[in-house]
Amino acid sequence: MTEPIHDAAALRARLAKESAIAFVPTMGNLHEGHVSLVRQAREHGRCVVASIFVNPLQFGPNEDFDKYPRTLDADCAKLEGLADVVFAPSVAEMYPVPQQIFVEPPPVAAELCGAFRPGHFRGVTTVVLKLFNLVQPQAAVFGKKDYQQFFILKEMARQLNLPIVLIGAETRRAEDGLALSSRNGYLSAGERAEATRLYRTLSRLREALQDGERDFSRLEASARAGLEGAGWRVDYVSVRSADTLLAPLPGETRLVVLAAAWLGGTRLIDNVEATL
Amino acid sequence: MTEPIHDAAALRARLAKESAIAFVPTMGNLHEGHVSLVRQAREHGRCVVASIFVNPLQFGPNEDFDKYPRTLDADCAKLEGLADVVFAPSVAEMYPVPQQIFVEPPPVAAELCGAFRPGHFRGVTTVVLKLFNLVQPQAAVFGKKDYQQFFILKEMARQLNLPIVLIGAETRRAEDGLALSSRNGYLSAGERAEATRLYRTLSRLREALQDGERDFSRLEASARAGLEGAGWRVDYVSVRSADTLLAPLPGETRLVVLAAAWLGGTRLIDNVEATL
Repeated sequence: MTEPIHDAAALRARLAKESAIAFVPTMGNLHEGHVSLVRQAREHGRCVVASIFVNPLQFGPNEDFDKYPRTLDADCAKLEGLADVVFAPSVAEMYPVPQQIFVEPPPVAAELCGAFRPGHFRGVTTVVLKLFNLVQPQAAVFGKKDYQQFFILKEMARQLNLPIVLIGAETRRAEDGLALSSRNGYLSAGERAEATRLYRTLSRLREALQDGERDFSRLEASARAGLEGAGWRVDYVSVRSADTLLAPLPGETRLVVLAAAWLGGTRLIDNVEATL
Repeated sequence: MTEPIHDAAALRARLAKESAIAFVPTMGNLHEGHVSLVRQAREHGRCVVASIFVNPLQFGPNEDFDKYPRTLDADCAKLEGLADVVFAPSVAEMYPVPQQIFVEPPPVAAELCGAFRPGHFRGVTTVVLKLFNLVQPQAAVFGKKDYQQFFILKEMARQLNLPIVLIGAETRRAEDGLALSSRNGYLSAGERAEATRLYRTLSRLREALQDGERDFSRLEASARAGLEGAGWRVDYVSVRSADTLLAPLPGETRLVVLAAAWLGGTRLIDNVEATL
């Protein structure tokens, strides 16, 4: 089992001589999706670092910070032979003083998931920048399942001149199409069977786009109605430009369809890219 | 004359093989104060980089961004033999897209100068982080004449885990005590003679503290009245804790007295540290 490093000074010491670090920040409770990110990291650096940190700053007061699954031993076992270094800091190690300095994300962080999780992306950008500054990687790998997050982090890297290449990895899915997510563990057996509807809905919307349908509002409303009819509570289904994450301009060909919806007490997100 | 580098990619290429960079960010129009920062930088790195960039993000709409003195050739001549690399980007090079991602400074950034220059310190933290990410220094040197700025940047480095040591250099003064500043060039001959009153006022306040006076409000009001009586318009005179930059708690012994005041159309700032 890879022995995790818990403190920042020890991490810096361990990495001092490394010059080509590829980094995968995670919140732990690792599944095949994470494992595939760590495998890909190997192509982008000689030293692969994974972090495991459930970041309080990105959870709202009524969200699942407390119940978010923490499985450090199992995670380290999964990373054996894949990651050279596992960094698993405590909250006190990452925030030794109350955090007062934040990375203010761009306006698009207030849309989509940001409209339902105020402050979420500010918490993400801030902790990722802190982790970047500790690890100092040349590349970092993120899952495109968190599409808006990856978009915002790429903007952060670009607009703050970070010397880091950000790589987006394709979403890993269960055989029935459900995007792998630590939050899938919250689902009951019945909910798990139903959960696949989210990806089916997005895939069907993509097909309609590729068939030439351009009334995005109608497509979004229809997708929403389908989910709601099956008992979901829908935060959003939205067709966006993959380049700006804003409403697509006429003629844009690189689109992404994103959704977030609740199945019982579990909030699931997913997305599909569509090139027209 | 040191030939300046204007673009970020060329800067990265030039610095790629350097492993011990000491950095001095400036807005140019260099005087002996800047020169002393650059000399000190040599003690903190093998490669000394100075940047010259008048950063629009830290100027308010009615401030002196347009008239701020730009003297690149003279600046490069002064840096000859002192800086190994001079980085002088254009605004378009630093902000190729409208900046939407900012470093949100701590609450103390809304006090003192921040109360009179809304957004100023957000502009400073953002550009300094961008410059840090371009230069990737191990150390950076700032003048303590901009005491609040240095305090906020130290907090930024600490709270964002920057792998950079920030060094504060003592304020350089003219023979009559006036703190060196590019904005001194705005002063008429008469104003220049009067300007020294700011430092005299702060020094006298420090003496009163060291003599045991503890009624900070009275000291501040008296200093303000003295300046106003001589025709200054005072933004603030404030006794603060050097450790928190907040109002000193009873028994605190490391204090700093800061002031900002206008002489005609020129805003001057200064400060003195007082250890009781």
